[in-house]
Amino acid sequence: MENERLKKQLEFCREIDKEKFIGRQTYKSDAQTKENDAEHAWHMAVMTVLLSEYANEKIDVLKTVTMLLIHDIVEIDAGDTYAYDEEGKKTQREREVKAADRIFGILPDDQRDNFRNLWEEFEKGETPEAKFAHTMDNFQPAMLNDLTEGKSWVEKGVHLSQILERNKNTAAGSKEIWDYAYKNIFEKNVEAGKIKKDN
Amino acid sequence: MENERLKKQLEFCREIDKEKFIGRQTYKSDAQTKENDAEHAWHMAVMTVLLSEYANEKIDVLKTVTMLLIHDIVEIDAGDTYAYDEEGKKTQREREVKAADRIFGILPDDQRDNFRNLWEEFEKGETPEAKFAHTMDNFQPAMLNDLTEGKSWVEKGVHLSQILERNKNTAAGSKEIWDYAYKNIFEKNVEAGKIKKDN
Repeated sequence: MENERLKKQLEFCREIDKEKFIGRQTYKSDAQTKENDAEHAWHMAVMTVLLSEYANEKIDVLKTVTMLLIHDIVEIDAGDTYAYDEEGKKTQREREVKAADRIFGILPDDQRDNFRNLWEEFEKGETPEAKFAHTMDNFQPAMLNDLTEGKSWVEKGVHLSQILERNKNTAAGSKEIWDYAYKNIFEKNVEAGKIKKDN
Repeated sequence: MENERLKKQLEFCREIDKEKFIGRQTYKSDAQTKENDAEHAWHMAVMTVLLSEYANEKIDVLKTVTMLLIHDIVEIDAGDTYAYDEEGKKTQREREVKAADRIFGILPDDQRDNFRNLWEEFEKGETPEAKFAHTMDNFQPAMLNDLTEGKSWVEKGVHLSQILERNKNTAAGSKEIWDYAYKNIFEKNVEAGKIKKDN
């Protein structure tokens, strides 16, 4: 009588509410409160709809949006690993694979495989969609950091070299967005003293 | 030299960060904090990807997801109007149209028209995508209210008749999701005394 498939799907829908409690290091536009993973994913999804025209290679927008909507769900168990936390990054993959097993495993098999594969595709960063998703994942927090006068960069004492290392693949998704970010965000904030020069 | 189109798009992307500060009446799964519009939109977007198979009529998933991602952006200016706030609902349309003019107006003309039309399509609720989007917009908070033992319904003293009126079009998007909600959420919470019976 009961729809077992729908029950599994809704159990997953309830479970992922927890993503709203996974905090990130990026300040929102009020420069007081920090965004969480759900807000971050929503923001990037809208941005992907608007900015997909700048992808280096043609992308499937629904696939890219879905990838971005779900790519941080593993952090419900694994936590957010800050971009410049070198210790945390050592165990990140192991923690996230375990989380993907548990959380995507709540879904019916076909949807579990679909979401799991999308997450792995994002992690590998090789397809046009995954490359553009990484461009968004790097650009959206940079945009907010710039909007809040570099508050997060200043607090963490971030160096330009760290940003360039973190963004080494940003241009692979969109040369145009990377060029904008380099000139109008990173260079500008180095000049303003918000991002530390190296040497 | 400057890309005027990209500048407009990014001005809009920065502006919509404010949606993360528009509070709703629905408690998140911790039953302590309430969700905001961005979290709500993210949650419904993921749910649409998973549950589109239950739409009464075949839907364009990207169109529906985009509609849900942006349909509350007008609340940046107009504020959230609670489902059972009869006074607020009298001026809601006027406030929201003005907001749509300003906020979607930041975008380049083609994207302004696209988002504006998607928002109007949602408001009218006539297409398969808009009907399903309304199913999500009603079902997602009901799911969270149920998950938090009806806390929001109890606090507001909500009657079943109000819920039925609010949900009069929920089945138009998905009979299967409405049937689930009626039996497993609304009837159950009336029996548990969380939703007031009408008599």
